[in-house]
Amino acid sequence: MKKQQFANTPCSIARATDYLGDKWIPLILRECLYGNNRFDDIQNCLDVGRNILADRLVFLVETGLLEKQKYQDRPKRYTYQLTNKGYAAASVLLAFMSFSEAHLFGPGDEPIRLYDRETGQRIETVVIDKTTGLPVDIRRLVPGPGPSFPEDEKGRRARFSEYFHLNFDD
Amino acid sequence: MKKQQFANTPCSIARATDYLGDKWIPLILRECLYGNNRFDDIQNCLDVGRNILADRLVFLVETGLLEKQKYQDRPKRYTYQLTNKGYAAASVLLAFMSFSEAHLFGPGDEPIRLYDRETGQRIETVVIDKTTGLPVDIRRLVPGPGPSFPEDEKGRRARFSEYFHLNFDD
Repeated sequence: MKKQQFANTPCSIARATDYLGDKWIPLILRECLYGNNRFDDIQNCLDVGRNILADRLVFLVETGLLEKQKYQDRPKRYTYQLTNKGYAAASVLLAFMSFSEAHLFGPGDEPIRLYDRETGQRIETVVIDKTTGLPVDIRRLVPGPGPSFPEDEKGRRARFSEYFHLNFDD
Repeated sequence: MKKQQFANTPCSIARATDYLGDKWIPLILRECLYGNNRFDDIQNCLDVGRNILADRLVFLVETGLLEKQKYQDRPKRYTYQLTNKGYAAASVLLAFMSFSEAHLFGPGDEPIRLYDRETGQRIETVVIDKTTGLPVDIRRLVPGPGPSFPEDEKGRRARFSEYFHLNFDD
């Protein structure tokens, strides 16, 4: 099964990379999100090897992103449904889309648009800061140590301070 | 060099996966974002094989996410700087962090926090819809064909309509 290489790494980006930093997992999550939940249908749609798809589905079930639901008894057949954690991982795909639409397609030339299931209105995502309500500008962000920042990473802590002239030791 | 398998796929998630669906690229972008821009420093920090790192850096320069800047002549040495496109790709890491903090760490136990370089204020990201200003709920989203949705994907178009009882042919 696909390994979780960064499960104990004290970095939220690295841990998420165990899930999303894979050629197939984002596309499997996409299919489940789009309502394409059966092994053969996903395999057919992605044109991925059956062994690779089976491996990733085991990984996604064991790590709690997908849940198997039996829909047929003889032979046994399952659908793969997103769990809460799976939906949260699938939310990252919205960021994939934003990057892609801005830099990998021509302007206004995206192949898929998103709509609200209930109102039918088109949804366009923006990332804002909770406190100011302003769009987040990645160039203005600097990292600093959080509650579980490891004590033995003093070097990195010092580097953060040095690069950005902020003092995170208060 | 790492291949772009989905460069012509009419799906914004797939195209972005060519960049971010990789075990090392998100972490290389992280290092560049955090101001760690030299080959040896990145290699040391990620504990990645030199050949793999070299391969990914060539990929990121050739696809326009990073730019080499010479900082030493004999021997020639370069830093790797994020371009506009690179910063846009690095913005996806904010979504990696949100998923990770909510589901892979204990509550309030994140190792890194983000701050505004100028104000020093902590930044916490939320994804909202541009029109309503409300947080986006992934469970309410349905996909529909956009401007460059391929004509030969009638099957998928029909499936979108069928699943979600919306008519995208208007």
